[in-house]
Amino acid sequence: MSGNRIGRIFSVSTFGESHGKGIGALIDGCPAGVKIQLDLIHNDLQRRKPGQSRVTTQRNEDDGFEILSGTLNGLSTGAPIAIWIPNKDQRSKDYDSIKHTFRPSHADYTYYKKYGIRDHRGGGRSSARETAARVAAGAIAKSFLNEMGVTITAYVSSVGEISIGTSSDIDLQKIEENIVRCPSPSVANRMIKLIEEVKAEGDSVGGIISCVISGVPAGVGEPVFDRLHANLGKAMLSINASKGFEIGSGFTGTQSRGSIHNDLFTIENDQIFTKTNHSGGIQGGISNGMPITFNVAFKPVSTIMKDQETINEAGDQVTVNPKGRHDPCVVPRAVPIVEAMAALVIADNILLARTNTV
Amino acid sequence: MSGNRIGRIFSVSTFGESHGKGIGALIDGCPAGVKIQLDLIHNDLQRRKPGQSRVTTQRNEDDGFEILSGTLNGLSTGAPIAIWIPNKDQRSKDYDSIKHTFRPSHADYTYYKKYGIRDHRGGGRSSARETAARVAAGAIAKSFLNEMGVTITAYVSSVGEISIGTSSDIDLQKIEENIVRCPSPSVANRMIKLIEEVKAEGDSVGGIISCVISGVPAGVGEPVFDRLHANLGKAMLSINASKGFEIGSGFTGTQSRGSIHNDLFTIENDQIFTKTNHSGGIQGGISNGMPITFNVAFKPVSTIMKDQETINEAGDQVTVNPKGRHDPCVVPRAVPIVEAMAALVIADNILLARTNTV
Amino acid sequence: MSGNRIGRIFSVSTFGESHGKGIGALIDGCPAGVKIQLDLIHNDLQRRKPGQSRVTTQRNEDDGFEILSGTLNGLSTGAPIAIWIPNKDQRSKDYDSIKHTFRPSHADYTYYKKYGIRDHRGGGRSSARETAARVAAGAIAKSFLNEMGVTITAYVSSVGEISIGTSSDIDLQKIEENIVRCPSPSVANRMIKLIEEVKAEGDSVGGIISCVISGVPAGVGEPVFDRLHANLGKAMLSINASKGFEIGSGFTGTQSRGSIHNDLFTIENDQIFTKTNHSGGIQGGISNGMPITFNVAFKPVSTIMKDQETINEAGDQVTVNPKGRHDPCVVPRAVPIVEAMAALVIADNILLARTNTV
Amino acid sequence: MSGNRIGRIFSVSTFGESHGKGIGALIDGCPAGVKIQLDLIHNDLQRRKPGQSRVTTQRNEDDGFEILSGTLNGLSTGAPIAIWIPNKDQRSKDYDSIKHTFRPSHADYTYYKKYGIRDHRGGGRSSARETAARVAAGAIAKSFLNEMGVTITAYVSSVGEISIGTSSDIDLQKIEENIVRCPSPSVANRMIKLIEEVKAEGDSVGGIISCVISGVPAGVGEPVFDRLHANLGKAMLSINASKGFEIGSGFTGTQSRGSIHNDLFTIENDQIFTKTNHSGGIQGGISNGMPITFNVAFKPVSTIMKDQETINEAGDQVTVNPKGRHDPCVVPRAVPIVEAMAALVIADNILLARTNTV
Repeated sequence: MSGNRIGRIFSVSTFGESHGKGIGALIDGCPAGVKIQLDLIHNDLQRRKPGQSRVTTQRNEDDGFEILSGTLNGLSTGAPIAIWIPNKDQRSKDYDSIKHTFRPSHADYTYYKKYGIRDHRGGGRSSARETAARVAAGAIAKSFLNEMGVTITAYVSSVGEISIGTSSDIDLQKIEENIVRCPSPSVANRMIKLIEEVKAEGDSVGGIISCVISGVPAGVGEPVFDRLHANLGKAMLSINASKGFEIGSGFTGTQSRGSIHNDLFTIENDQIFTKTNHSGGIQGGISNGMPITFNVAFKPVSTIMKDQETINEAGDQVTVNPKGRHDPCVVPRAVPIVEAMAALVIADNILLARTNTV
Repeated sequence: MSGNRIGRIFSVSTFGESHGKGIGALIDGCPAGVKIQLDLIHNDLQRRKPGQSRVTTQRNEDDGFEILSGTLNGLSTGAPIAIWIPNKDQRSKDYDSIKHTFRPSHADYTYYKKYGIRDHRGGGRSSARETAARVAAGAIAKSFLNEMGVTITAYVSSVGEISIGTSSDIDLQKIEENIVRCPSPSVANRMIKLIEEVKAEGDSVGGIISCVISGVPAGVGEPVFDRLHANLGKAMLSINASKGFEIGSGFTGTQSRGSIHNDLFTIENDQIFTKTNHSGGIQGGISNGMPITFNVAFKPVSTIMKDQETINEAGDQVTVNPKGRHDPCVVPRAVPIVEAMAALVIADNILLARTNTV
Repeated sequence: MSGNRIGRIFSVSTFGESHGKGIGALIDGCPAGVKIQLDLIHNDLQRRKPGQSRVTTQRNEDDGFEILSGTLNGLSTGAPIAIWIPNKDQRSKDYDSIKHTFRPSHADYTYYKKYGIRDHRGGGRSSARETAARVAAGAIAKSFLNEMGVTITAYVSSVGEISIGTSSDIDLQKIEENIVRCPSPSVANRMIKLIEEVKAEGDSVGGIISCVISGVPAGVGEPVFDRLHANLGKAMLSINASKGFEIGSGFTGTQSRGSIHNDLFTIENDQIFTKTNHSGGIQGGISNGMPITFNVAFKPVSTIMKDQETINEAGDQVTVNPKGRHDPCVVPRAVPIVEAMAALVIADNILLARTNTV
Repeated sequence: MSGNRIGRIFSVSTFGESHGKGIGALIDGCPAGVKIQLDLIHNDLQRRKPGQSRVTTQRNEDDGFEILSGTLNGLSTGAPIAIWIPNKDQRSKDYDSIKHTFRPSHADYTYYKKYGIRDHRGGGRSSARETAARVAAGAIAKSFLNEMGVTITAYVSSVGEISIGTSSDIDLQKIEENIVRCPSPSVANRMIKLIEEVKAEGDSVGGIISCVISGVPAGVGEPVFDRLHANLGKAMLSINASKGFEIGSGFTGTQSRGSIHNDLFTIENDQIFTKTNHSGGIQGGISNGMPITFNVAFKPVSTIMKDQETINEAGDQVTVNPKGRHDPCVVPRAVPIVEAMAALVIADNILLARTNTV
């Protein structure tokens, strides 16, 4: 109810603040008997981690994690799985200068208005550090989905005005081969160059992450408010800095015509599929067995290395000039977060679909 | 859990099928003492109604409604409010020819795979007729929001490739003055012309609806998964034919820079506001007091008056050729639906925000 | 959230007031493919109906019902099933005299304090008439449970100080053979006599209903807060006039010793069972395959045909003297209500248990 | 959904196993600005702690706790509050001998049937150790309720066949003065003597806990399924070894008459109250401003120091003879657990009641 939990059957709650003792995830509803892939949790946390390359913040978060409950001999037991990620590089004092100041386009002002009290240390609960807990929980969901034959692959499809568009050299196997996580090596290089320029200016730039989910059988997702893409959309829009979501043809599809846009059913070797996939694998809110495809828009991150005017709690006009470390572009590190949120939504819906028929 | 309900405090469940006895909405959690505006329910149902103009389907739905419970002397009592909208123009037989056929890009196939049984009559539960119940429920939410000083205004901002863009003659007062519900009279004319062309071809076209919500105080919305725009996004993506959602600068904002995109706080006459509103009124998932602005993408509707190849339940390749009536473009009629879903989300969040502090 | 819904997967919401247009139930989450037993709905409504015998109120409720949605050709489709039961014998004017008076031990005062507005007509939402909707919904749940091999049988085990105790002539097949619904014919006669005496005095008396659920497989129910008996208890305590719930040995068991109370496991013909069933079929909140047994306590109904002192909204001391019709003892009519609530809880938990393992 | 969470606004999830790393509570929805009373958490944990007296198990649990998140400078921030209680005295090996055996009236068999896998170490998740997390969370709820003027007092009212009944020397101030937590010193002595006898025999005995909640204003609780006493009942029935719940007059009240049982309203000094309180402070599921009173029945604990027949996973008849430490009677230690669960329910309902009216 208070927004810190997502999912109905397979659910996750996160807790903790960026500069408190640590952050955690509580996974409730993971079926018993799932082989928990610790290396997957570790690997996804590494992919999300700051300081992993020259296009991300140099802030160092050592995302060691500990599973506190819910497993026995490497298997889930059906009990809640708690994961704890201690904070190590806290430097709360870095934030003393902005204790009473509302940083532009951060959540400082809105939390203050909502709660009357706020944890100013690095944004507290609103910090993107909270997403580490999501990534850990998502890796648990992936462990389950692997056993269901579902795979989830996200990648960076645009940075600023540079987009993979219809590049000819896209290869999803190559996503992790470059630091920007773009499946086109040539476009990746241009993206990296742009991010470096932006970083040199102390500025930030946005981007788009695309995601493909394969192996979801037809019939997953609930009508009418819990359409599968509606829940995917909510999950993606709940990620820090996310500003938009589109499934299948999305915004571009609004310019199409029904006669072109409709996905015609066909059958081959007793397999039903559609000739095109403008629907993005979901029709009427329910999966149709085709790959589920969507895009998520991320704004330029709010922390920049430039002077900005704002006000403080007293209502005075003041200037903020953040010091130290920042992410010039969030999308390379947000790739595993998108995957994690997708995994959570799909795991939840696959379990729920077991209750559809007598 | 089964997807037919939305909202936590102020919630609505819908029920009924397009060609059954009728459709209904059950509103639970409306506070006691709200003056229920019957004329508003009536008016919004009229705005959603098919057959209202030459750019919509000529199918006739007489959306008379009846409030079955939850009010006394014109006020809500705190009890659940049930609204019933009987179906009158059912013509189930129109659908006999497609009883065992999966219409392309409809929900026929996915419902069949999910439930093993499906109501073929006009899509049954997946029909856009279900949205009439949403509009009625939304008008109850609007009745409450009016007392809270909140107003919601949606309009058509693009049809196919025609967009209001940066038109100079936008006037939100003029939305209802043209049949396409576009606030720019000149652009509206071009949109109407396009829809008429598409209709003449038996085809369909998509479009975008924009929405502005004013009067929401700062502090509404919940971190972290229930960010206000995440719940707005889910609500919008749950509307039939919706394929995308963006808040504030959205997908376009991904090409901006932080130094331009950040909304600087300022204060005038003790009023805090931001100089720009790229955030779309929401920061960190919580309202900041600025107008909340978002866009929703709608695909070309799937029902077209052209032959299309598909398969049937037996796995045979067959041709469908829908007869009769269809909507060449859904967006003019979807305007009140977008408003209704926005009203439901905001009402819910305003009530929930009452529990934030001691 | 507002208390008008129960269940997670198989859920029911009720709506409507005792003297409004009617009352309804909205069942969401019933699996597709259930054969809906209309005769069962009808029969259970008849068993709950007032005026059915000389030991119940003579008020006449003609509980005709209509299924508004969610079925096709006699089967559930997976869509929400709405049931509507119109009110026919409303006589709202009977209540004009108590419009501003708080009847003792009714919900008049508490609703007034909660909502600032109340539907005085027969208690409005708080009336026991609301339970007709539960009984109809419960019959849908029973339709599903029949297909799962589960049967639910409730009966009156005490009225006032008369209890079946350890009567030797208990036969669950005979419950419906007497108007008080007691499985012991001899005790039934004494109960009936007591109720008639109490009725003649214009007074009321309480009683206890016992329930046996057979056929629930081991493994149903969720730890730790949603223990199966905790949810059964909540469901029973939500029935009008209910004041207590006990599972298995209940309050009496508190006086036992562990060495006697423990249910020893044994095995015969590969069937595991316990030699005794003090646990009432549930251990650690999860069914163990034995019959689930519990008792529900009902107070003497508050409406009596005697003068009683109370106060009105103005704070004046006044006297109420209800006219007309009342139930001297609620338990005979509450038997199908207890069964209905049990059916809803078990159906919900059986579906949820499908998600427990990989 | 998976049963490890309770509450709608003010909610708590528990996690952890009796012989794992520790147990935890995640409180979500605690309003911002509550002064968190650490001494209260500590004190209530001490009251629940095993080994505190000669009538409880000598097992030693050092319930040190750590608040991991959600507070700043001693106040709640509105963010989730995670509390961690490490396990110190684990002795998992004590349980190796029963690894494949189903202890009578424990949850061994039911967990095994549900999950196909079980944590045999001391019952794992089903252990009463889980209630330490509830007590810690309840102390957070009490911190909030203290600021709302609500007080909660539970005590032992019977052990086996010894009951305080209508003892003349009841004084709620004296509850903590004896090790059995009975407000009558003379009855307490008899209870202690009984428990010592039972303990000497290696047996166990049940008991009843009574609870009084004062200071809840009229209007708290939701109709119709979420009646306040229904949610209290569920909360109490979710406590280990609990077998029954009754509000106000409860099971005894079933033998009363309406003319005696009805609570007559009266007014004095502008204060409305009832002359009697058979309703137990709740009418129609909503508080009426009188003290809320209820009883909870606890069975004799299942672990006894005697040989018992049972079966193992292979289906063989075997004998269990638990070694070491056990609680001969659970009620003295369950007093703070009852209070904690009551606090969680009342806090949740008080917050929810803020949304009832415009």
